[in-house]
Amino acid sequence: MNDADYVIIGAGVAGLSAAYAPKKRGATVLVLEAQDHVGGRTWSGQLEGAEVDWGGEWIGEGQPRIYALIKELGLRTFPTFDTGKKILELRGQLSTYIGTIPWMAPWKLIQIQLAIWIIDAWAKGLDMALPWNHRNAPEWDTKTLESIRSRFMWSADARATMDAAIRTIFGSESGELSLLHMLAYVRSAGSMNNLISTEAGFQHERIAGGAQSVSLAMAKAVGEEHVRLSQPVSAIVQDASGVTVTSASGQSYRAKRAIVAVPVPLGSQISFSPRLPALRQQLMQRAYMGGAVKCFVRYENAFWREKGFSGEAASGDGPVSVTFDQCSEDGKTACMLAFIGGKFARTWHRYAPDERKQIVIERLAKYFGPEARKPIAYAELDWCGEQFIGGAPIAIFPTGTLSIHGASLREPIGRIHWAGTETARQCMGFIEGAVESGQRAADEVLSAD
Amino acid sequence: MNDADYVIIGAGVAGLSAAYAPKKRGATVLVLEAQDHVGGRTWSGQLEGAEVDWGGEWIGEGQPRIYALIKELGLRTFPTFDTGKKILELRGQLSTYIGTIPWMAPWKLIQIQLAIWIIDAWAKGLDMALPWNHRNAPEWDTKTLESIRSRFMWSADARATMDAAIRTIFGSESGELSLLHMLAYVRSAGSMNNLISTEAGFQHERIAGGAQSVSLAMAKAVGEEHVRLSQPVSAIVQDASGVTVTSASGQSYRAKRAIVAVPVPLGSQISFSPRLPALRQQLMQRAYMGGAVKCFVRYENAFWREKGFSGEAASGDGPVSVTFDQCSEDGKTACMLAFIGGKFARTWHRYAPDERKQIVIERLAKYFGPEARKPIAYAELDWCGEQFIGGAPIAIFPTGTLSIHGASLREPIGRIHWAGTETARQCMGFIEGAVESGQRAADEVLSAD
Repeated sequence: MNDADYVIIGAGVAGLSAAYAPKKRGATVLVLEAQDHVGGRTWSGQLEGAEVDWGGEWIGEGQPRIYALIKELGLRTFPTFDTGKKILELRGQLSTYIGTIPWMAPWKLIQIQLAIWIIDAWAKGLDMALPWNHRNAPEWDTKTLESIRSRFMWSADARATMDAAIRTIFGSESGELSLLHMLAYVRSAGSMNNLISTEAGFQHERIAGGAQSVSLAMAKAVGEEHVRLSQPVSAIVQDASGVTVTSASGQSYRAKRAIVAVPVPLGSQISFSPRLPALRQQLMQRAYMGGAVKCFVRYENAFWREKGFSGEAASGDGPVSVTFDQCSEDGKTACMLAFIGGKFARTWHRYAPDERKQIVIERLAKYFGPEARKPIAYAELDWCGEQFIGGAPIAIFPTGTLSIHGASLREPIGRIHWAGTETARQCMGFIEGAVESGQRAADEVLSAD
Repeated sequence: MNDADYVIIGAGVAGLSAAYAPKKRGATVLVLEAQDHVGGRTWSGQLEGAEVDWGGEWIGEGQPRIYALIKELGLRTFPTFDTGKKILELRGQLSTYIGTIPWMAPWKLIQIQLAIWIIDAWAKGLDMALPWNHRNAPEWDTKTLESIRSRFMWSADARATMDAAIRTIFGSESGELSLLHMLAYVRSAGSMNNLISTEAGFQHERIAGGAQSVSLAMAKAVGEEHVRLSQPVSAIVQDASGVTVTSASGQSYRAKRAIVAVPVPLGSQISFSPRLPALRQQLMQRAYMGGAVKCFVRYENAFWREKGFSGEAASGDGPVSVTFDQCSEDGKTACMLAFIGGKFARTWHRYAPDERKQIVIERLAKYFGPEARKPIAYAELDWCGEQFIGGAPIAIFPTGTLSIHGASLREPIGRIHWAGTETARQCMGFIEGAVESGQRAADEVLSAD
């Protein structure tokens, strides 16, 4: 006798999307979550009255599934604050600009634009769902993005601008990223411009009540008694008639099929029987999570807005790679986000907590003025330290991985199916991709039985 | 009350070396092993009366610790059979040669030699123990070995020769290997020549009774009651006075300090409390194991020897990258080894068992004659399928890893110390390195208390 038709491992946006669709069609589901809350890499909290998103928060145009879901769940979005001057810091020097193009010597801008053109042009040729099938995929997978950065960007400022973007998008350095993975990611998002811009880009809007509210609402719709928290899964056994999923505390659940919706590298922590094919097992072993720390600083008032700043600053110098205004929708609760990514995120813990706060506040003071030195509160989340997530924002596939192991990313293995934003055929790495992957996995199990 | 002074996780050569030294000095130790046997990546068995080494088997000059250990344990070595013609297969064509230099058009040989010179010259500048401190380390860590292969090797034959070597040494493709990791590995071994040659190289000798006999003898010396098999460790908690190590079956052990001697990527499967620093945690997440399958074919007699062949064949074509004579010391029990590495190892499971046997035997028939088609027995081990090993021969550190995370490879975290051949300061990746790392970790715990 089964405990449910389908058991889903992971109650992030992907896992809950995978549970929500069959539930609506009358199937029974059971969602097992390792953490004590739902949402996965979307997690919302409070900082002295300000709503903060510890994880993924933005959505934008070209992301139909998450917008449809938000509407269906009775949730609401509001525009990311984007009014006023932006700041770019390169090798200690600040410049301000309006719109999406920073002020820079034209020949430096040309280098940046050239790199973006090359990346967009190469990415365009890829099949969004099967980027590893491109004839150049094996070669691109032997190189890192550094091969473009060092070949087409002679200016240190152009390179630093790229570093700020790559650390923010991938939680990674150019020299780590397989060029194939990077191109597949851009293809999946549509263009570099979607990745980097706020207006008309993927940072266009925020979700009222925080991004976690999508998962909370889906969990409610699935039925909270069918979503079990603090149940890290340790083993999945499949046989001819179904799957048995066992949690670390020893509880077992039986179902027809399992959907694994955890970050790709964390699949390694589950013992599968019979063993997974080497291609899949090594895919999980090879993938790793990027490094990201989100720091929030709560202020009495949004002094930067009053001074004509949008709150957006990008820095190639680090450790902060980008800042954003994180005030409440009405602007009355003032909050600032400082994002730390890539190598700076991975070494962030080497500073004492007080030093970390000091570093962030000094960056903000440099960008927006001495008012930044009078915060009401400070808090941060280092995603590398989250045991059941492992890092953020996304899983990285090192050189030689997608070209050989990519096909195993979504391929079901008997009664085991895979979801998670990294398995998405569109907007891989985003909330939209998580929804797409969960819905696709749900279609798989529903059409299989 | 402690169960032992030190608890060691992993009963491979590294873990047992770490246990053996303190034991000799009167400390009490407890070794917890996940598998049902000791030896880790050295594991010896039988195939129709032939002794076979499923894992690491060779030792050679410049490896003083393993030779000293073998002597101390009353074991013995014998030379790898190396008499007769060798074979090189490139793009379907066979050539035979004697010694270490295959016959090839001189301009192709020059390309291979040039690549070896460059690698050796660059490797020479590295500090063996701290390769990530070299001024070029950040740059080398943004490139793969493919950057040398495609830049200095125009000949397809030269490239194929390199592929055969890299698949065998690293279980990897040139396009996957961080150039920094590759150079560090060569530095640690002394030279490329040590890595690739049998005579006067690291493949010079075999251990009588199989390589596992070193671990079996150390386990006996430690006391078999102090080596607990089938005890995968799931959690390590450290506090001010010691560590508590818990196995998956729920048994707990208390000690002053723990030495973790499992392959680097498998450290991710242990839950550490307090959490490990991000640098260490992400090192384990980023490392992955190479792909290697060892296939053994047992014959009535060593027909290749009778025909003047040494049994050594290298192929750039795959799936078999190298073969070796694996007869007993007296030559009377005939056996052949075919090694499959890199991308061919990771896709090997896609063939049915009978097909796999057929593929291997047809390679041997091509190299050594139709007698190869009459085997007595065939057996293989795919290391990717070993749950508590994850792959072989060594852990690979992808681009961007050693330059940032290298320093955390050996750095103790409170009462937790690290061993394993990948942490060795000399002969990293070899049995010798495993011994070195275990002895170093033992020195650490003994001098700490």
